[in-house]
Amino acid sequence: MIQDIVSAANPTLKLLRSLHAKKHRLETGLFLAEGARCAIEAAAQGAWPEIVACTAAALERPAVRSLLEEAARRGARIIRTSDALLAQVTRRDNAQTLVGAYRQRWTELAGLADARRYVALEGIRDPGNLGTILRTADAAGAGGVILVQGGCDPFSVEAVRASMGSIFAIPVVRTEVEAFLEWRTKGRITLIGLSLTGSCRMEDLSAAGATCLLMGNEQSGLPAMLEDACDARARLPMAGAADSLNLAIATGVALYGLWRAQGYEGATR
Amino acid sequence: MIQDIVSAANPTLKLLRSLHAKKHRLETGLFLAEGARCAIEAAAQGAWPEIVACTAAALERPAVRSLLEEAARRGARIIRTSDALLAQVTRRDNAQTLVGAYRQRWTELAGLADARRYVALEGIRDPGNLGTILRTADAAGAGGVILVQGGCDPFSVEAVRASMGSIFAIPVVRTEVEAFLEWRTKGRITLIGLSLTGSCRMEDLSAAGATCLLMGNEQSGLPAMLEDACDARARLPMAGAADSLNLAIATGVALYGLWRAQGYEGATR
Repeated sequence: MIQDIVSAANPTLKLLRSLHAKKHRLETGLFLAEGARCAIEAAAQGAWPEIVACTAAALERPAVRSLLEEAARRGARIIRTSDALLAQVTRRDNAQTLVGAYRQRWTELAGLADARRYVALEGIRDPGNLGTILRTADAAGAGGVILVQGGCDPFSVEAVRASMGSIFAIPVVRTEVEAFLEWRTKGRITLIGLSLTGSCRMEDLSAAGATCLLMGNEQSGLPAMLEDACDARARLPMAGAADSLNLAIATGVALYGLWRAQGYEGATR
Repeated sequence: MIQDIVSAANPTLKLLRSLHAKKHRLETGLFLAEGARCAIEAAAQGAWPEIVACTAAALERPAVRSLLEEAARRGARIIRTSDALLAQVTRRDNAQTLVGAYRQRWTELAGLADARRYVALEGIRDPGNLGTILRTADAAGAGGVILVQGGCDPFSVEAVRASMGSIFAIPVVRTEVEAFLEWRTKGRITLIGLSLTGSCRMEDLSAAGATCLLMGNEQSGLPAMLEDACDARARLPMAGAADSLNLAIATGVALYGLWRAQGYEGATR
């Protein structure tokens, strides 16, 4: 079941290392997720790795061993290697003892389940922000994260890391403006843009129906054409010398504000 | 006024490069802040650099040139150097055209101005989180950020970068538990701990008086002894598969929740 690999030139290790580059993630449809805990959470969401590289130490943990046995039954290739070779895959000093390659799972707009809250991001640039927003949207019970007009890759190592496993739990969609606005109209979804020049506060929003929170990117905020398409533009209060909030923070504060206006419907804890 | 430096061996450039290491920040009392925009914001807060390294291109901008002339009058050493040597200081590919070394400014607990909101962080580990929290606390009109029982360095390059200039605007205190609790008692400050096992929600809090939000670290949350010292323990609602929120997100959501309970008192925009 388990293949021992001691050479950095091994093709499987090379493949894993290549997944740091977007080009190779596109070509293979795979992405990297680090850590035994993440692999356990992924399995709980029905996501199984196609390849796993791990150290001998990881395999000594019963939970990890049984997870990998099940993954192997489902067709995964399992390789055992050294700390040093695994650190070359993760590019981290404090190496994880396990890294998996998973198939990217994208959702179509039409495939999103009905939900009270969605998050849409226009052209987001920072993968750490994107991963943090995936985690926050998952925690706030959002029905999906919609990437409008490009933006960075949710399956990059940095985004996956920041998502802390939520990449496996929350549907991710990428789409263009026209299809996004059509989805919103057909689904009767209220579109709330967050903007420094917004005229209302999150708590003033009507809590009825489904709402999609729309965020501009880190540098330029929402383009005018998307602002105009919103049913309302909201603004977070500001004081002090800060010009703005970090994008992930603004998304978190606004999303929790929206959830609160919806009476924290769906909270499980 | 301006010294041209073309050698990486120059002692001033070496000093600047050394400020990536905490040891050298401790020895010199200095820290690095990157970018012309940050330097302009720092000056607006009355913070002037002791050393500035910049490219010829930066000096062609009138706003930068007049800022540096004023800095030089106040005793700053100004050096002009190449993109490549500056990139060695910032360790960034897309190098800034300017980097300043500033004197670290710490505030004592007794030196904190009266405010309605403070943020206290116990043993925070991630400098990106800390910088983002400084920015958020500034934006939410908090009176200061209090580092209780160690934690990472707010003057590290990564924390300063994430603070987006707020390191110059918001008072930062480091203290131990005993002094912190004494400050809270003497100042009649309500202490609200955020905890996954908290019993109330931010919006249920009494809005009267001054409140300090207390956050545990990324891995282990609040130690029992600090939880016990809180007047109340609050909890953010959760759904989905996520175990928890990122620390900076949780702080932002809780702080805005607190501010909302205080009627957004002090909001300027």
